[in-house]
Amino acid sequence: MRHVQVQTTKNEYPIIIHHNFDLLCEHLVKQGVQGKKVCLITDDNVSPLYLNHVVKLLQTITNEVSYIVIPHGEKNKNLDTIQTIYEGLLAHKLDRESVLIALGGGVTGDMVGFASATYMRGIDFIQIPTTLLAQVDSSIGGKTGVDFDGYKNVVGAFHQPRLVYINTQTLSTLPIREVQAGMAEIIKHSLIESATYFKYITSHPREILALESEILEELIYESCLIKSKVVSADEKEKGLRATLNFGHTIGHAVERLLNFSLLHGECVAIGMVAAAYLSKGLNQISAKDFMAIEACMEAFNLPTRLDNLDPEVVYQELYYDKKTKYNALNFIVLTSIGSCEMKHDLEKNVIIDAIKYIMQGDSQ
Amino acid sequence: MRHVQVQTTKNEYPIIIHHNFDLLCEHLVKQGVQGKKVCLITDDNVSPLYLNHVVKLLQTITNEVSYIVIPHGEKNKNLDTIQTIYEGLLAHKLDRESVLIALGGGVTGDMVGFASATYMRGIDFIQIPTTLLAQVDSSIGGKTGVDFDGYKNVVGAFHQPRLVYINTQTLSTLPIREVQAGMAEIIKHSLIESATYFKYITSHPREILALESEILEELIYESCLIKSKVVSADEKEKGLRATLNFGHTIGHAVERLLNFSLLHGECVAIGMVAAAYLSKGLNQISAKDFMAIEACMEAFNLPTRLDNLDPEVVYQELYYDKKTKYNALNFIVLTSIGSCEMKHDLEKNVIIDAIKYIMQGDSQ
Repeated sequence: MRHVQVQTTKNEYPIIIHHNFDLLCEHLVKQGVQGKKVCLITDDNVSPLYLNHVVKLLQTITNEVSYIVIPHGEKNKNLDTIQTIYEGLLAHKLDRESVLIALGGGVTGDMVGFASATYMRGIDFIQIPTTLLAQVDSSIGGKTGVDFDGYKNVVGAFHQPRLVYINTQTLSTLPIREVQAGMAEIIKHSLIESATYFKYITSHPREILALESEILEELIYESCLIKSKVVSADEKEKGLRATLNFGHTIGHAVERLLNFSLLHGECVAIGMVAAAYLSKGLNQISAKDFMAIEACMEAFNLPTRLDNLDPEVVYQELYYDKKTKYNALNFIVLTSIGSCEMKHDLEKNVIIDAIKYIMQGDSQ
Repeated sequence: MRHVQVQTTKNEYPIIIHHNFDLLCEHLVKQGVQGKKVCLITDDNVSPLYLNHVVKLLQTITNEVSYIVIPHGEKNKNLDTIQTIYEGLLAHKLDRESVLIALGGGVTGDMVGFASATYMRGIDFIQIPTTLLAQVDSSIGGKTGVDFDGYKNVVGAFHQPRLVYINTQTLSTLPIREVQAGMAEIIKHSLIESATYFKYITSHPREILALESEILEELIYESCLIKSKVVSADEKEKGLRATLNFGHTIGHAVERLLNFSLLHGECVAIGMVAAAYLSKGLNQISAKDFMAIEACMEAFNLPTRLDNLDPEVVYQELYYDKKTKYNALNFIVLTSIGSCEMKHDLEKNVIIDAIKYIMQGDSQ
């Protein structure tokens, strides 16, 4: 078992990393859940795998366990599904003291988080992320929300969970492509924060992709440490937290232009190669470091290039994001492997060059 | 001009009370609104009265003023209207730095507050309440929300405004019945917090109902002081804030059983008479105090009795509220005029007696 404590302005909460569900109830009891009304929310992909088991565990600490199964996938990450959740909560008579539990990937976690942020003006919730992406990224930090009118996460709230419980064994039922995509965020954590961690990752690609239990626990622990350190320092993304957007500016643009046909992590991998190339162009990292970064993506079978987008179209798409402060583009660049900074004033040709680099198809 | 400063855990903000809109821009500038994208949201009742004037004022401090007009009334206090607001905000390209302004009564304020709590995970908003009820009650304290599936305010968030600007002259366009209903919450403030204030109110019913400017400013100032003091001490309603529910337990039950045919403040007046009668029955206040309370309601033409409900049905309805903690009934009783406490363990017959008292029709 590994344990990371997340500090927030109002509270703190533990992330527990273990290779089964055996410690779940003990940690729920520590968070005061015993005897309370609890509603477990999961999607129709995850429910056949873990719903019964987790419900039975919950029944050992409270008599009032209910559950709601929602439709899976980003296409259902909307206010309609949120209303389905509210209806279930009212039907099960959940009150202000009740606790919601999100069991599933990032979409489930984001939606259950938003429902708990807004049901009766905010009730407690717990994250049990079952994908690598959710375990090292979306379940930590309190960002919750849904898509609206084609805009991703434009409706949401900051609402911190009371506990994040990670069972690394749930990854064994995850398609390998999703494990690889989750690795993109893990590689990102190392690139922005820790050269040692980057070295560790690049030394163990085979063991990681084979889901070796100890390596996995170590990996998730290190990533949770970095993510929680960053969000603790900047809960509402006023500054430092923006460093977590490394690779995401171009990554998001590519993701939208490809109509979400690649996984988020895959687009982030491509975006990180572009951002690393750009950092090299600014003489902030060496050619050797850049090659190591690109090689790391490849070691985890992550895509690093595309061949079907117009660089100018990608550039224009960077300005799509409605969160862009006053239309200025904030770009996270590396200053070495393991550190980064935000640039507000990059020239267009520097960015275009980086986009051109990733548009060289699979030939290199 | 009068000024009340509200302290919250994370912030503080001013309530400005004045007899016109002349000081609005100066206070918006103090809150950093100058030059930002601003969206004014009001309903179709209020827009013909004040929209143009306020838009023109806003245009003196920023070039980016947009507005959204929503349908009025409690029946539109729902997620459909919230989605209309989100659509407008996206159409007007509001970003994380933008500011929403709620111009109208409590329904508008609650909905704009909720939209600003959840648009891009929370943006700033400003309250310009135009009804007495909103000015002394709902605009202060950060409770926002909408009704869902027949449950009042069951979807919402705590989100504090950056400024509450009260123009007392807006009350001149308010139906007198709504002014009287607003007085119910003002009387409540005096009963739970200040005998001196209660004396002031009972000494000036004529001037108050004639909307005499100075008296009105004093009244709203005193009520804002009390409300802000209570919510500052207990932002999330863990304890003290519950005292603001004085008169509301039976008041809400009556309001629902009469299918909202009486105004909220009118039901609260009836609920306060019942709660005061109950306090007398527990020997916590004297018969003389009780009569003074009932006479005060009458002086403001507020109803104090009903004649068409079964006391047992009203009693059962008290348990309707889904927020009731573990189904125990918390009842605020007076310990004198100007102070109160919460009771968890009242016997049924004591409550039934109080309900029977208000069911004596208009004969007494």
